Amino acid sequence: MYIRKTVPISKMLRWTRGHIIGFLLLALVPVFLYDILGLTWLHVPWLPLSVVGTAVAFIVGFKNNASYDRLWEARKIWGGIVNASRSFTIMVRDFVQDDQLPADELKSIHREMVHRHVAWLTALRYQLRTVRQWENKRASPANKRFRGVVVNILESDVPCREAIAQYITQTELKDVFEKENQASQLLGIQSARIKELRQRNLVGAYEHVAIEQALSELYALQGKSERIKNFPYPRQFATLNYMFVWLFIFLLPYGVMEEFEKIGDHIISEHPAHESARAGLHALWVFMGKHFVWFSIPFSATVSWVFYALEIVGE
Amino acid sequence: MYIRKTVPISKMLRWTRGHIIGFLLLALVPVFLYDILGLTWLHVPWLPLSVVGTAVAFIVGFKNNASYDRLWEARKIWGGIVNASRSFTIMVRDFVQDDQLPADELKSIHREMVHRHVAWLTALRYQLRTVRQWENKRASPANKRFRGVVVNILESDVPCREAIAQYITQTELKDVFEKENQASQLLGIQSARIKELRQRNLVGAYEHVAIEQALSELYALQGKSERIKNFPYPRQFATLNYMFVWLFIFLLPYGVMEEFEKIGDHIISEHPAHESARAGLHALWVFMGKHFVWFSIPFSATVSWVFYALEIVGE
Amino acid sequence: MYIRKTVPISKMLRWTRGHIIGFLLLALVPVFLYDILGLTWLHVPWLPLSVVGTAVAFIVGFKNNASYDRLWEARKIWGGIVNASRSFTIMVRDFVQDDQLPADELKSIHREMVHRHVAWLTALRYQLRTVRQWENKRASPANKRFRGVVVNILESDVPCREAIAQYITQTELKDVFEKENQASQLLGIQSARIKELRQRNLVGAYEHVAIEQALSELYALQGKSERIKNFPYPRQFATLNYMFVWLFIFLLPYGVMEEFEKIGDHIISEHPAHESARAGLHALWVFMGKHFVWFSIPFSATVSWVFYALEIVGE
Amino acid sequence: MYIRKTVPISKMLRWTRGHIIGFLLLALVPVFLYDILGLTWLHVPWLPLSVVGTAVAFIVGFKNNASYDRLWEARKIWGGIVNASRSFTIMVRDFVQDDQLPADELKSIHREMVHRHVAWLTALRYQLRTVRQWENKRASPANKRFRGVVVNILESDVPCREAIAQYITQTELKDVFEKENQASQLLGIQSARIKELRQRNLVGAYEHVAIEQALSELYALQGKSERIKNFPYPRQFATLNYMFVWLFIFLLPYGVMEEFEKIGDHIISEHPAHESARAGLHALWVFMGKHFVWFSIPFSATVSWVFYALEIVGE
Amino acid sequence: MYIRKTVPISKMLRWTRGHIIGFLLLALVPVFLYDILGLTWLHVPWLPLSVVGTAVAFIVGFKNNASYDRLWEARKIWGGIVNASRSFTIMVRDFVQDDQLPADELKSIHREMVHRHVAWLTALRYQLRTVRQWENKRASPANKRFRGVVVNILESDVPCREAIAQYITQTELKDVFEKENQASQLLGIQSARIKELRQRNLVGAYEHVAIEQALSELYALQGKSERIKNFPYPRQFATLNYMFVWLFIFLLPYGVMEEFEKIGDHIISEHPAHESARAGLHALWVFMGKHFVWFSIPFSATVSWVFYALEIVGE
Repeated sequence: MYIRKTVPISKMLRWTRGHIIGFLLLALVPVFLYDILGLTWLHVPWLPLSVVGTAVAFIVGFKNNASYDRLWEARKIWGGIVNASRSFTIMVRDFVQDDQLPADELKSIHREMVHRHVAWLTALRYQLRTVRQWENKRASPANKRFRGVVVNILESDVPCREAIAQYITQTELKDVFEKENQASQLLGIQSARIKELRQRNLVGAYEHVAIEQALSELYALQGKSERIKNFPYPRQFATLNYMFVWLFIFLLPYGVMEEFEKIGDHIISEHPAHESARAGLHALWVFMGKHFVWFSIPFSATVSWVFYALEIVGE
Repeated sequence: MYIRKTVPISKMLRWTRGHIIGFLLLALVPVFLYDILGLTWLHVPWLPLSVVGTAVAFIVGFKNNASYDRLWEARKIWGGIVNASRSFTIMVRDFVQDDQLPADELKSIHREMVHRHVAWLTALRYQLRTVRQWENKRASPANKRFRGVVVNILESDVPCREAIAQYITQTELKDVFEKENQASQLLGIQSARIKELRQRNLVGAYEHVAIEQALSELYALQGKSERIKNFPYPRQFATLNYMFVWLFIFLLPYGVMEEFEKIGDHIISEHPAHESARAGLHALWVFMGKHFVWFSIPFSATVSWVFYALEIVGE
Repeated sequence: MYIRKTVPISKMLRWTRGHIIGFLLLALVPVFLYDILGLTWLHVPWLPLSVVGTAVAFIVGFKNNASYDRLWEARKIWGGIVNASRSFTIMVRDFVQDDQLPADELKSIHREMVHRHVAWLTALRYQLRTVRQWENKRASPANKRFRGVVVNILESDVPCREAIAQYITQTELKDVFEKENQASQLLGIQSARIKELRQRNLVGAYEHVAIEQALSELYALQGKSERIKNFPYPRQFATLNYMFVWLFIFLLPYGVMEEFEKIGDHIISEHPAHESARAGLHALWVFMGKHFVWFSIPFSATVSWVFYALEIVGE
Repeated sequence: MYIRKTVPISKMLRWTRGHIIGFLLLALVPVFLYDILGLTWLHVPWLPLSVVGTAVAFIVGFKNNASYDRLWEARKIWGGIVNASRSFTIMVRDFVQDDQLPADELKSIHREMVHRHVAWLTALRYQLRTVRQWENKRASPANKRFRGVVVNILESDVPCREAIAQYITQTELKDVFEKENQASQLLGIQSARIKELRQRNLVGAYEHVAIEQALSELYALQGKSERIKNFPYPRQFATLNYMFVWLFIFLLPYGVMEEFEKIGDHIISEHPAHESARAGLHALWVFMGKHFVWFSIPFSATVSWVFYALEIVGE
Repeated sequence: MYIRKTVPISKMLRWTRGHIIGFLLLALVPVFLYDILGLTWLHVPWLPLSVVGTAVAFIVGFKNNASYDRLWEARKIWGGIVNASRSFTIMVRDFVQDDQLPADELKSIHREMVHRHVAWLTALRYQLRTVRQWENKRASPANKRFRGVVVNILESDVPCREAIAQYITQTELKDVFEKENQASQLLGIQSARIKELRQRNLVGAYEHVAIEQALSELYALQGKSERIKNFPYPRQFATLNYMFVWLFIFLLPYGVMEEFEKIGDHIISEHPAHESARAGLHALWVFMGKHFVWFSIPFSATVSWVFYALEIVGE
């Protein structure tokens, strides 16, 4: 997570460098056709296009809203895991108790349970970092560049098994990695271990159920984070948004050019009315009016970039 | 669920092939009337139409939002079933216990309970796959084509009873299929079975209630998935959206044609001002200006397709 | 609830028949004044009107969203009642038990409890079907016609008391109808009955509390459905929406007419430029241009109908 | 709460009488300056204004949505209090029991608890009716007039202490009013009283905790209603909305006037083209065209009123 | 929190003083270039700009909605802490009890627990007031000025340790400040202390679990408030919004100027048509028309301010 107040604009621009050039080229095409090749009939009426633009802005806005909600929900789940971990820790410490047992043996039981919980946290973290097929963004060079600078994620270097090994016994480690979902396996072991403690009467019946429910809660939180991870924004929506934005970006320069051409005509027709200047200046004016469409290039590129950035930010 | 990053555009286009042709024909109608039959008075003012367009975009956007929320809720319920199943499994394993009972008898009880739970999952899955009357999409040829390629769903081939048979006894199977809602029946059997175990003192009073509450939770999740399944997006909203989009699509070509006609007039009137070209080129220009409305066809079809795709994606 | 894929358009049109005629008349007024009485100065500028139109679309969109949320919440509550009923049934069956009691006596207790639960469901259903003052829609002829065809609701024919009588004893029936909220009374009896069973030791202390909490849940669900029923969409919002939509519908024809008039002028002025046709045709053209505003009538009526349908669908 | 289907429009108009006159005066200003004082250069371009208008409509729409959500949440909390009260009542009646105690003594305990609960409800109601500083609307004459007609709220006449006195003993009353939050005090007494009953063994340990949790729930509901009461829609948002709406209302007449002026010009220029009428009529036409801006007054006032009503309805 | 009905406009204007001047200067630039330096070709077409404006308004509206939701959630959490504290207090008082123990010893235990709870509240408050890196607003002079006038927050003056010292023993204080998260430490001590009371049999097994669950709830609330504190509105969204608003503010004056220029031309061309006035007045008129663009400065600044205020209010 980025924690500076704003991502510096320069970094933003550098990051989208390639696309900005692309937008400039896209905006150049109609101007080239119109002003160099003389296809002066090249026009797309702006007004219908503006309805498309509004619709696209609307849809992308909805999508970003949904993205934000997902992000927020993910954050909530993570916060829930932190809270549940804290609660689980005090439960283990204060529910598992016995007057007969020597204090350090009790302590070693507590430590074992807490360590296994840390192992669960670790397994879950690794699970959530696995790359999915639809997250091919992460592999793009632009993103790699970005990532290289900003963060250095542990999970890329140490394999999961090694990271977990320090928290549980060798036997458990083997059992856990024999089946598929490691995090689930670990919670299963916790539950089995608590049952043992219950049978040895270190936990009361009522406390047993309370801890079991805490484990249910952890299962629920694990399931929720897996859900967020495995269920991307529905691809058909995402695809349509993507196509609409690009469709708009492709049509935009033609519509914008038309508006600039109108201004160009206006400059030519109006100029003499303003001041009867020298012929040279007049010629310059006329020249400017005729080729005013060139100014549509930076304008189109800017608007394209705005829509593109909107589309991309929610991914 | 589709898991590639984006549905390829080519597939998207192929899928909506029929409609694209339809939109082109719709857009052709006013151009034909105007330019071939000479009904030059054929006009719909664009500005009021654009308000309709904005309103439609807005409404369809809301609808898609609601669709997405439904999808997301469905996913949540499914995730909830996964979590509840995991919790139920450890509960059965660690709450149903007895020091006197031989280990393998205890194990067979556990297995029986878990198998019956799998039977419940299977019954629920079948229930949710039944086709409802308002889901006639699924039967359309376009959809069938789409489905044939992408997925091969098990439920179409094996009948439900057969699929469940392997998880429960013959007597239970008969009982379950005598009444209507199989999934509910199965949970009822689970509850009855737990009561027996309680009477044999294999489960404590407190643990009994905890498992019973887990069964309540499963009932709740089943009910929720049935609700999502049986309660489509309210038909009166859906119908109106559908009509608005088509109304807009029908009117659109007339409004767009008008805008293109304006540009055509502009081309004719402005041309001499640009360059005193040869007569041939001039004639071409005038010809182009007069028939410029033909360019409105692809434009209208594109906008129609955008609105249609928006409408259809949420279904 | 309507379960066909879409409400057929013909039904929709027939249902709003009266209004469509009204909209045509409303749209006729300005055309009549303008073209027959010659009040050619009759104009409302379209652009400010379009901002009003956008605002109205926006507000009505929000309202429909809220309506949909209410509908969805109502559906959720109903689903919740189904789930809670299933859970309550297995709880009664599996928590109320005793080894000494003969099986059929136990069964009759179970049946009694479940029947009383059905009585509660019935009472609740009747309560929710009572007509409220602000629901005067239901009494309108259009709605009656609609309803007569589609549904035949039981509650209109059999009085509530009679419907409940079959599920509970005469004494209870009398008690329940002596006070006001029948559904609440029934839950109260359930609770008292469970206390008795607890005193006879047919229910454990722990199970007693669990059933009591299930009753709390039923109270909560009853309360929620009463809330949805008794708390309509806030009237001040509804009234404003209603007024805005009608205000827009009243102003709309004037604004639309202006746009059509512009097109009319355009037809007249431009015509000779297109082709020097015969005088007769020319006269026709001029006639068409002069009276082009008549085409605004169907257009206005269509747009009015869109906004009206939007407003009405959420009610 | 208003329960008629719609607030009658006449009442609505009467209620906003003062503002409507204000809007007419505001709309008169630019017309006066333009047409009487001859400041014909007085113009604000409509198009940028329309973006402001759309933005304002959007923001106010969001605000009204938030208002509605608050209203709905308040209603939910109130419904929750009703449900929790019903549950609490059956809990007290069916959990507090003893075979040894004479029936009427038990009954008097039940009655005492329920009465104290009613006292809590009363105290809470009074608390929520206290006027807050930011609710100065309530004191405005328009509102008073409105209120006088429609409702006659009890709390204005009987002091809180008196209203509660009938439900609890004098000693408790004194204790409760010695500290600040009466409702909280009352729940505290309930809890202490239940503890006593627990010590006298009239309540089981398990039932004790269940009732205690019901009290927690009541605390939560009380806290939620206090929150809704004490946390208005954030003032900085409200202020901005307020300013934007007024800014738009102030600028609106200038922009609208410009549009009407254009129509006026159009009437003058076009008139001869329509019919070569008598000079008198022609003069009338020209007069009308020149002073057409006067028609902008009712139009501006209407639009202003729409935006103002939207802003005010959410408060 | 601000509790007056509206923040006075004068204060609002004073607060954004600097920016208003900035907006005036920004709006001056194009007018200067156009009217003084004579770069009459300086134009940006308004229509594409208006789509950008609508999109920006939309996006900022969404953001403010999200901000409001966060604020509301924060308020809910705070309300939750209040409720949980009240519940915790009665639980401690009424669950920790013993017939043998002298009344004042029991009371001192209650007091100790409640004091430690207050210590937790204090620690949490301090934690939430720490300044984060992305909240650099707080340090800006404008904000300091604002804050100095309105509030005088205790936490800036008394260090946390001192504030907590009065509620817990010296030993506990030392322990708590040895590790990082003081609030968590304090809840841990509460849990350990309750376990001790359980071992001395002052709390029943069932009550023990109930109090432990109350502590879980407090952990959850603490975690939630930390989450709100530590997870700002995603920076990439915030940055984009910020850039879009400024982009729009920079382009706005050019687009607005164009619209005012059109009006200027209109004034010049139309004037003679209105009245053949004296030459002096006519010259004034022409002068006014030529330099009418100067009026775009206040207009642009106003619109800029509206968008800027919208952007800033959600932060």
